Amino acid sequence: MRIGIAGYGNLGKALERLAEDNPDVEIRGVYTRRNKEEVVTDGAPVYSFDDLYYHTDEIDVLALCYGSSTDLPRLTPELSAYFNTVDAFDNHSLIDEYKRRVDSVAKASGKTSVIALGWDPGLLSLMRLYFSSFLPNSSVNTFWGRGVSQGHSEALRRIDGVKQAIQYTVPREDALTLASLVAHPLSNVERHRRVCYIVAEKGKEDFITREVLSMENYFAGYEVELHFISEEEMHKYHSSMTHRGRIYALGMSGRYKEVKHSAYLDLDIGSNPDLTASVMLAGARAAHKLSLENKNGAYTVFDIPPSYFAPKECKNVNNYL
Amino acid sequence: MRIGIAGYGNLGKALERLAEDNPDVEIRGVYTRRNKEEVVTDGAPVYSFDDLYYHTDEIDVLALCYGSSTDLPRLTPELSAYFNTVDAFDNHSLIDEYKRRVDSVAKASGKTSVIALGWDPGLLSLMRLYFSSFLPNSSVNTFWGRGVSQGHSEALRRIDGVKQAIQYTVPREDALTLASLVAHPLSNVERHRRVCYIVAEKGKEDFITREVLSMENYFAGYEVELHFISEEEMHKYHSSMTHRGRIYALGMSGRYKEVKHSAYLDLDIGSNPDLTASVMLAGARAAHKLSLENKNGAYTVFDIPPSYFAPKECKNVNNYL
Repeated sequence: MRIGIAGYGNLGKALERLAEDNPDVEIRGVYTRRNKEEVVTDGAPVYSFDDLYYHTDEIDVLALCYGSSTDLPRLTPELSAYFNTVDAFDNHSLIDEYKRRVDSVAKASGKTSVIALGWDPGLLSLMRLYFSSFLPNSSVNTFWGRGVSQGHSEALRRIDGVKQAIQYTVPREDALTLASLVAHPLSNVERHRRVCYIVAEKGKEDFITREVLSMENYFAGYEVELHFISEEEMHKYHSSMTHRGRIYALGMSGRYKEVKHSAYLDLDIGSNPDLTASVMLAGARAAHKLSLENKNGAYTVFDIPPSYFAPKECKNVNNYL
Repeated sequence: MRIGIAGYGNLGKALERLAEDNPDVEIRGVYTRRNKEEVVTDGAPVYSFDDLYYHTDEIDVLALCYGSSTDLPRLTPELSAYFNTVDAFDNHSLIDEYKRRVDSVAKASGKTSVIALGWDPGLLSLMRLYFSSFLPNSSVNTFWGRGVSQGHSEALRRIDGVKQAIQYTVPREDALTLASLVAHPLSNVERHRRVCYIVAEKGKEDFITREVLSMENYFAGYEVELHFISEEEMHKYHSSMTHRGRIYALGMSGRYKEVKHSAYLDLDIGSNPDLTASVMLAGARAAHKLSLENKNGAYTVFDIPPSYFAPKECKNVNNYL
């Protein structure tokens, strides 16, 4: 399988490195919008973004390693006219529209796009669907973190007077306990607190604090912790890329719902971009197989039979004992 | 969705009760090979097994609530000529042949059979496949129990001098620790010990002990605990239907494989037949939907897009946030 890597940030770099462990994968090239002379890879050839259009026959799946806020919504529909693609689009509120747009282009051009495939949305979405569908009378709660939320960090950076900022999403301990004991869906506000580290311009701390605490959809209503730190501290203590996702699913059966069932998943992530890249690589396999069967359009994990992700042949359930 | 229940043991009874919680499900009837006058249900009409052939147009999916050792291998290929079916066939070594036989009949008759769908094989098979495919350089270990293994209990009962017997599969504590720390696949013998409770004929204890400890594929090589107990004790202490399944998946990434990722699943089952029935009900939904799309043949969970199991409409990953 010949993979093209479009975008060479943390995600693209992780994907290149992972390919070394997968003998069935060849990295055809890294495609960048920066000056290609300035991009140093681990060995993969570097091309300009525009060279992509000369390589349409040499790439089986193009891995789109861009952000979800502006790049993917614009680039994926464009590129899915020429390539099978895989991406980790994670803007939940826009995903329906995104899927429709990519689907219509890919169907028209006979290409296959696997979209929104990372660890969440992606792996954790699958767990929630299966737990919800398979456990009787089930209730499911997801907890993210401790780990950086890019969206919330960017929201902080847009505030006047913020020079640098990072936001950790952290599960509330009381909510973790509750979710493990009681079949009741908790809100995002009930499940998480938001811990912010900010490098601020002098004297702007009070203004920033008020702005953060009143920001609707991001911080208002949440338990928020604000720490104003120096640039040096930011650099020294806040470069970790670990993350974590936990799901508590509880079900009940029996005449009086007296029989309890539970499924608990704990995904502990050493490097967010590395795991995302690994899931995307499995998604590239699925896109490639679907494409070989002329199954075109936009697919999420919910639309794809699990066997399509397996690196080895997988004809039956006893292949994964 | 109109469900027929073929076989009315613990599994069939659990399925009938669960249907009450699912407004989209109607139990068309319970079909029994026993004298139907002696079968008392929770409300569903009771028919003789042979009446099935008069109800082919009134049942959307037939749930086959039989054992895997003799009944399912014989009955599923027969019934899949007339019905969409779902079953929890769990004899791993025979599953390839079973799938081929059911597939050819179902394809020829335009029916859909979802096979081998319980919590394992089934839910845990899915988790293993996804963890294996999505985590980089992954290693996966499954632990069953503490819970009763029907196959091992039956193997004990076949020994001369055994009046009653039950076998609990129990994870070894040392193996649980190892699997949580080291990416290395452990053998079944390394992962589990086998705890047996036996009601024996007088004076047969030594003979039975030798037979058990030397039984290949079942007990030989394992850490085995044997307890000879009275019929009264068997009745009083060994009727629980709880079970448990745990999966440890470890992955690693980075240039020197220095970055660790882990996925841990803990499925705690209050009643083995209740959970199996619940999973089968989701499988019946999938069989029904596949059949409506004229997708015929035998399907395992690996062949079915996840969305087919969802009780609610499921067009996109944001339907399971």
